[in-house]
Amino acid sequence: MAEAEAEARGRRARGGGGAARRAERTAVSIETARYIERNIPNFEVLTEEALEIIEANADTILEEVGVNFVDNPAALERWRNAGADVTGERVRIPRGLARKLCSTAPSRIIQHARNPERTVEIGGKSLVLAPVYGPPFVRDMEGGRRYATMDDFRKFVKLGYMSKWLHHSGGTVCEPTDVPVNKRHLDMLHAHMTLSDKPFMGSVTEPSRAQDSVDMCGILFGKDFVQDNTVMTSLINVNSPMTFDDVMMGSLEVYAQNNQACILSPFIVGGAMAPVSVMGTLTQVLAEALAGIAYSQLVRPGAPMIMGAFVTSIDMNSGAPTFGTPEAAHITYGAGQLARRLGLPFRSSGSFNGSKMPDAQAAYETSNSLNVGLLAGVNFMLHACGWLEGGLVSSFEKFVMDADQLGTLHHIARGIEIDENAQAMDAIREVGPGGHYLGCAHTQANFKNAFWRSDLFDYKPFETWSEEGERDTMVLANARVKKLLGDYQQPPLDPAITEALEAFVATRKESMPDAFS
Amino acid sequence: MAEAEAEARGRRARGGGGAARRAERTAVSIETARYIERNIPNFEVLTEEALEIIEANADTILEEVGVNFVDNPAALERWRNAGADVTGERVRIPRGLARKLCSTAPSRIIQHARNPERTVEIGGKSLVLAPVYGPPFVRDMEGGRRYATMDDFRKFVKLGYMSKWLHHSGGTVCEPTDVPVNKRHLDMLHAHMTLSDKPFMGSVTEPSRAQDSVDMCGILFGKDFVQDNTVMTSLINVNSPMTFDDVMMGSLEVYAQNNQACILSPFIVGGAMAPVSVMGTLTQVLAEALAGIAYSQLVRPGAPMIMGAFVTSIDMNSGAPTFGTPEAAHITYGAGQLARRLGLPFRSSGSFNGSKMPDAQAAYETSNSLNVGLLAGVNFMLHACGWLEGGLVSSFEKFVMDADQLGTLHHIARGIEIDENAQAMDAIREVGPGGHYLGCAHTQANFKNAFWRSDLFDYKPFETWSEEGERDTMVLANARVKKLLGDYQQPPLDPAITEALEAFVATRKESMPDAFS
Repeated sequence: MAEAEAEARGRRARGGGGAARRAERTAVSIETARYIERNIPNFEVLTEEALEIIEANADTILEEVGVNFVDNPAALERWRNAGADVTGERVRIPRGLARKLCSTAPSRIIQHARNPERTVEIGGKSLVLAPVYGPPFVRDMEGGRRYATMDDFRKFVKLGYMSKWLHHSGGTVCEPTDVPVNKRHLDMLHAHMTLSDKPFMGSVTEPSRAQDSVDMCGILFGKDFVQDNTVMTSLINVNSPMTFDDVMMGSLEVYAQNNQACILSPFIVGGAMAPVSVMGTLTQVLAEALAGIAYSQLVRPGAPMIMGAFVTSIDMNSGAPTFGTPEAAHITYGAGQLARRLGLPFRSSGSFNGSKMPDAQAAYETSNSLNVGLLAGVNFMLHACGWLEGGLVSSFEKFVMDADQLGTLHHIARGIEIDENAQAMDAIREVGPGGHYLGCAHTQANFKNAFWRSDLFDYKPFETWSEEGERDTMVLANARVKKLLGDYQQPPLDPAITEALEAFVATRKESMPDAFS
Repeated sequence: MAEAEAEARGRRARGGGGAARRAERTAVSIETARYIERNIPNFEVLTEEALEIIEANADTILEEVGVNFVDNPAALERWRNAGADVTGERVRIPRGLARKLCSTAPSRIIQHARNPERTVEIGGKSLVLAPVYGPPFVRDMEGGRRYATMDDFRKFVKLGYMSKWLHHSGGTVCEPTDVPVNKRHLDMLHAHMTLSDKPFMGSVTEPSRAQDSVDMCGILFGKDFVQDNTVMTSLINVNSPMTFDDVMMGSLEVYAQNNQACILSPFIVGGAMAPVSVMGTLTQVLAEALAGIAYSQLVRPGAPMIMGAFVTSIDMNSGAPTFGTPEAAHITYGAGQLARRLGLPFRSSGSFNGSKMPDAQAAYETSNSLNVGLLAGVNFMLHACGWLEGGLVSSFEKFVMDADQLGTLHHIARGIEIDENAQAMDAIREVGPGGHYLGCAHTQANFKNAFWRSDLFDYKPFETWSEEGERDTMVLANARVKKLLGDYQQPPLDPAITEALEAFVATRKESMPDAFS
């Protein structure tokens, strides 16, 4: 009962005198469930034979074809010293070397939040849920689709903070296009650090911005703490197929040197950046993950890394990427198995969908991805809520719709209790044939925690729903967005830290001219 | 590749001379995928210990508490002769007896369709998809929610016939409330038999109506064929907890005596008709299934039976049933395990949801249920498409939305091919770092069958979607309903059979006064 524990700890932490009790009575509930610890098996589709084929083929690819490390002489030097065959920017890695290098990466990562109750563990049976990442547009019911701004960004951070089933504040919850490209990371990090107390991600768009992220964490957590502990999990995409560019690798180097976690994610649109088959895609994903994670260990052995897989298929009629598809499910299940055999935490994507609005298509595709992620043994689910239109849009309504559905993952992951109370033999004896259980002692004792219920969906009778204006899920979600933003209260932070963060942001902004591309 | 085979067989069946080829070119495609044969494992959440506890407890319930067979002296006599302890209408079954009786029920059922290509196998690794069953209302975009009529019923049968991923025509796809209660089964069966050539379900609302169903099948298939083969799979609900009424059991008796299959389904709203815990519910489900299926074998050893589970949870705030919930998932996974240990085919429910319209809530909840059903090893999925508002409504738009999603189940169930072509090593070598796969030989050779694509969802760019009126999934589905009904062509049937069916219906209708309750 991870949630119940978290709730109990929350109560203890808030305890104290009369003022505290009064505050507790009036305070807005911002309960956050503890990260998921699965008490259910993983679903595995690949046989031992298939796994061995993929692993052998990935080694063949690394040895024969190799990978490119672009504009990065230091990386080539590191690879040469490690025993790889480097020709130009092409790095060919002898069989087994990449896997051996990966073995120094830890199998579990503790990512600290500034509120220790929100610290997460990434690895093993855990599942940490983080919101949408990267869209340049936002959408809501009133405003439609428009370029995202820093104001939108702050709203998403607040919604994430207010979402019970979301463990992580994420990173680029939308691209604040009204802030210069070279400065927006400062505002984004500042928002995550001050508007939420959940863990977050750092910037990866320039090595210097990764360094800014580390420096700001030094202010928030203390410099020594940051060197000894992981306080960021940042997203490093591979330019699939098999290309590692200097920007992403430069950021990875900064994070690895500072003991901060990265997700190394092959970025796959099947049929375009990887073969059109599941086995071929898994082979390439594994080869890329092995090369990238091995490289992180060349930078600093023991650097915390997560094996990622951003996977969609392509609609061969139109060339559009498609989401929540069977092939993405196969790849995610398979990649989870491969990551576990590597002994590394695994990342997938959650609310994937290609719809233009938070309608039934969006929900079918999202639900497919969420369920696959849970059963695939994913440890870090990015885009767990809010994603729309193939990642072009962060949707306010969909954010709270998906965030509500994340509750189902928590409850499925609990598994099935089998103790005497759960067996309910006394209840069955008490009620007997033809009776009903609504009033029986067992139901009275257990109903409060027995069933998950949505905080968003309509469970009312038709007549009530009709009288209330026949609201669909999007309309209900729109109201919930407003309620959550209205109820939002900023989590307390030491004023000296707030001041120091603001001073850092101001100084860094002054040090650079604005850049918009 | 079950589909590909079915398609190939379809082509052969249509083959012939020039006229046939011309007909083929102009004929509307009414391809139906073959029933699913899973090439993936089942997901199992119950440990051996939990399974043994449930089985022992179910036997304890049957022995100590027993079940009621109401208004059915013949049933009580059968039980007494089999060694049960019968007191009043209460039947207490000695440990192990029910399971022993169940062992004569077959583990696989071939249900014949009048078109042999649409015959299905229910059991083992198979999954047969059948549409919504039972709602008194229908809903569509123009007409809103209204009482269902026979005209609606015929439209749903036509949509089912036109749905590629639906294997079964179902039964009461909606309740035709404009036809007298005691005569509507005749019109419903007539519709399934003449408007579709997929397999279907018989009437269970009176034993005499079950007999009418058998007699009509005698006309359609031939009397001898019906006695030797299963041509109907009909739905027998238990009045949970642990009550077997004379109407349902009387229908079961007719079907068992005529070698026709029944789904014996405990009807569970958790917290009302079963304990509020998953273990308790599974125990009761198993006890009820054991008693009901054992009874079918007392009527006729070898009668084909499917173990069902209609499972929802309850919203303890409002008392409303809730769908697509984590607890329903646990129960479905667990019940699948119990059915396999009994050696019986297993039935679940598909498009379960509590929404009032085919919106995101409907899709999230439906997708949860569909995915659970696939992984739970379900052999017969009722309500696989079209269900709305907790089963009060058959929705035209949702029918085609869900029916489209059923394609994802087929593709996931295929599993992952691992042969050399699937490994795609030549493609990876050919493309290399930084290239793309769109034009490579492997992609060209494989793209047509590589990825599932929706026939309904919007995959267009935002601008096109916007120009076309920003249609959501419901609007797209509304257009698809009209297209499918417009394209519908009745499958050919021997005019003598058509005439005989019509004569039977007319004679039976004349023999009874109208009854409306």
